[in-house]
Amino acid sequence: MPVSEEGFLPTAAAAAPEEPQQTDFQLVRVKSTWCRVKKGETPSNLKDKIILSEAKIGECVSEGGISWTIEAPIYFCYKVVETHNILDPSNPTLLWGHTTDTQQLELNTGGKRRLRRFIVIDEVVDELYGSKVRSYFEENNVQHKILALPTTEETKSMDLVLNILQEVQKFSIDRRTEPIIAIGGGVCLDIVGLAASLYRRRTPYIRVPTTLLSYVDASVGAKNGVNFLQCKNKLGGYTPPVASFLDRSFIQSIPRRHISNGLGEILKMALMKHKGLFDLLKSHGKYLLDTKFQSYSGSANRGDAALQTTRIAIETMLEELAPNLWEDDLDRLVDFGHLISPELEMRVLPSLMHGEAVTIDMAFMTYVAHARGLITADEKEQIIQCMRGLELPVWHDACSWTLIQAALRERLRHGGGMPRMPLPTGLGVAEIFNDISEETLRGAYKLWVKDCRTVLEEGTAAL
Amino acid sequence: MPVSEEGFLPTAAAAAPEEPQQTDFQLVRVKSTWCRVKKGETPSNLKDKIILSEAKIGECVSEGGISWTIEAPIYFCYKVVETHNILDPSNPTLLWGHTTDTQQLELNTGGKRRLRRFIVIDEVVDELYGSKVRSYFEENNVQHKILALPTTEETKSMDLVLNILQEVQKFSIDRRTEPIIAIGGGVCLDIVGLAASLYRRRTPYIRVPTTLLSYVDASVGAKNGVNFLQCKNKLGGYTPPVASFLDRSFIQSIPRRHISNGLGEILKMALMKHKGLFDLLKSHGKYLLDTKFQSYSGSANRGDAALQTTRIAIETMLEELAPNLWEDDLDRLVDFGHLISPELEMRVLPSLMHGEAVTIDMAFMTYVAHARGLITADEKEQIIQCMRGLELPVWHDACSWTLIQAALRERLRHGGGMPRMPLPTGLGVAEIFNDISEETLRGAYKLWVKDCRTVLEEGTAAL
Repeated sequence: MPVSEEGFLPTAAAAAPEEPQQTDFQLVRVKSTWCRVKKGETPSNLKDKIILSEAKIGECVSEGGISWTIEAPIYFCYKVVETHNILDPSNPTLLWGHTTDTQQLELNTGGKRRLRRFIVIDEVVDELYGSKVRSYFEENNVQHKILALPTTEETKSMDLVLNILQEVQKFSIDRRTEPIIAIGGGVCLDIVGLAASLYRRRTPYIRVPTTLLSYVDASVGAKNGVNFLQCKNKLGGYTPPVASFLDRSFIQSIPRRHISNGLGEILKMALMKHKGLFDLLKSHGKYLLDTKFQSYSGSANRGDAALQTTRIAIETMLEELAPNLWEDDLDRLVDFGHLISPELEMRVLPSLMHGEAVTIDMAFMTYVAHARGLITADEKEQIIQCMRGLELPVWHDACSWTLIQAALRERLRHGGGMPRMPLPTGLGVAEIFNDISEETLRGAYKLWVKDCRTVLEEGTAAL
Repeated sequence: MPVSEEGFLPTAAAAAPEEPQQTDFQLVRVKSTWCRVKKGETPSNLKDKIILSEAKIGECVSEGGISWTIEAPIYFCYKVVETHNILDPSNPTLLWGHTTDTQQLELNTGGKRRLRRFIVIDEVVDELYGSKVRSYFEENNVQHKILALPTTEETKSMDLVLNILQEVQKFSIDRRTEPIIAIGGGVCLDIVGLAASLYRRRTPYIRVPTTLLSYVDASVGAKNGVNFLQCKNKLGGYTPPVASFLDRSFIQSIPRRHISNGLGEILKMALMKHKGLFDLLKSHGKYLLDTKFQSYSGSANRGDAALQTTRIAIETMLEELAPNLWEDDLDRLVDFGHLISPELEMRVLPSLMHGEAVTIDMAFMTYVAHARGLITADEKEQIIQCMRGLELPVWHDACSWTLIQAALRERLRHGGGMPRMPLPTGLGVAEIFNDISEETLRGAYKLWVKDCRTVLEEGTAAL
């Protein structure tokens, strides 16, 4: 039953040609309707009336049927904002810092409805800052619900995500204008990020990191996730927050070892791409540990080490993350310290913190870089000394040659068959290598064991 | 403790100026490292050695601190492919249709490892096609796991998603090269889409729709999701599949009422933007229902009604979805039929199928368009007759004036304070309106009740 010729057959569907026929379309909007237009065929009298999309549709008609290829870009936009006294009721950041001035004005003045916020806070942070958080929202006349939860690697699960979502649903937030706020360390920010990105297919959320590690790491990127079947961050996504608000004063309440932990990830950025940051850590590491990054004390004291360190760490991290937000490019300098450490961390959990395991991995890789002739013995020594100065471990007895081989095999598997190994090629410069030989690795391992192994369990490091 | 001047201070972090100072950076890659470069400041001798990212970082330094604004685009690319005899072992589409020719060649020839696929299939579809699916993978020597599940609105939950993920983890797929395959109706495709997009932060998946509705709707877009706390699709995301493979022959095994159900969504696209599609449905609706879209019978018979109808439905849908994949723009023609129907569907579940509820909504909106003077009485009549011809309902007793008011209030709430009402302005053309008066709505409702109400429950339609 062929359709009669009433002029309604679109070109493409009319008749299949002998040869596959490819047509590329752009999309233009005329009034409310999006239309396909062949490239370069927009009628000139319409040019100023139309909106052109970045999306494209390719169409290929062949004997076998028709196929369409859709290319559609999504623009993520988020803010990372440094602020002081974020819990001071007169500081508007927590309520309005994610908006532009115009949006803020509109929402503020048009607000017949009372402001509403749903807050998830780590229970340890709640003990320390809960009353200040409550006062903040009360004094700003914000209708709010504060949900305090244990957020640790052990509780980092889809169950906790669903708990949060149940409460969110009960509180009933507006998915466009009422961002969910997460206050805590990396685990808390990760869990809430996943919950928010699932709720109504995407609800805005805000990150307020309270540890040094999450201040320079989780707060900057888009990743979120939970553990699943004993696997770290097996489930999750890449939806960034609308904003991260950074207040260094939270860091004063974390233990010294947690400061070192954060310094591990900062050192990673220093070694990969910023000599100045490395020099800062080398010269002022102890001071940063002693003062817990609290050296900033008003406008007179700018340019201090804590301020410099966090800013450069964030800027270098943003440089690497922004062009590769969904990790489509597997060649990532920020993977330095993350080749051996996942295997190690899982093996010895909870004895090593994340930044510690990362540092042990970096220490080994520093030896690899030296064995390959990328850095001098003196540069290698400077790096290892800097790690020690930051009170970070440069060795762990679980680091057998077997473990390293197993970890690198995993890396190959997930790297599309290539190790994609970031290695320093000097102090604060690095490149990605795919041709490090087994011999080089073995040589590096031997020297690393000799120099760095402190306590020897029998047989652990047998080659 | 100010940092000494060792030349490592980046410009921005040096000292806060009196006035907020805004700098916009592009990102360029030199070897393995991404660097910020002020717009227009790329050294010309580097221009051919660098890669420029579409991402941008804006930096604003003020008394209060520093803030960064990150803009990062993500490019989604997916295929929608028509094929015949998808389960014929000699048809390579299901195994390779998502790749480009080059990728396919590489994977095919470089394959030291046996091909592996994880398949989720609706249990009803499994009864009908399970043995063919098994043969397909066996004859192609693919190591596979087929998971048959009940996929209905009742089972559409995060529990089922986690069930799937547990099996996926057990089977151990490669997250880059082994897409998860979903075979079933919309619910099955939605559940598997969510599972895949969560697994390792994004695992590719393939959709094979087996109903008319999912053939023209779920298979084309990016949305996935599950119900939560009695709310339809409350949790989910917008990660598109790598490919959807369309084989019309599945449609022959669904009941006649399900064909009408799919025709409801096709009619939506016709009314919003394609007069030709409307004419097709008007002239050939009964034929399509009688033949269950099986009129295609080889290359001699091209241009038939079933082929035309599905192709135009998909093309018009793609036009509207591709530029707005994550629904950032709230003005959406594809929302036609979806203003009243969510309220109605939930109220009477399971008595109305989705496409039926959508049609009832469209019938009312057709009266609204007429009352507003956008379409003539004759056009209105043609639309209603077409719905009846497709054996779709144009009225439901649960459609009280109260329900309509409640549904439109919900719409306002989620539309950022505006109704954003798509309405036909002729046959196959439409616009979005925000200024339809209560009087117009009431007048339209009265006439709709008078013309279309078939069985009257007492008092239901009291104004």
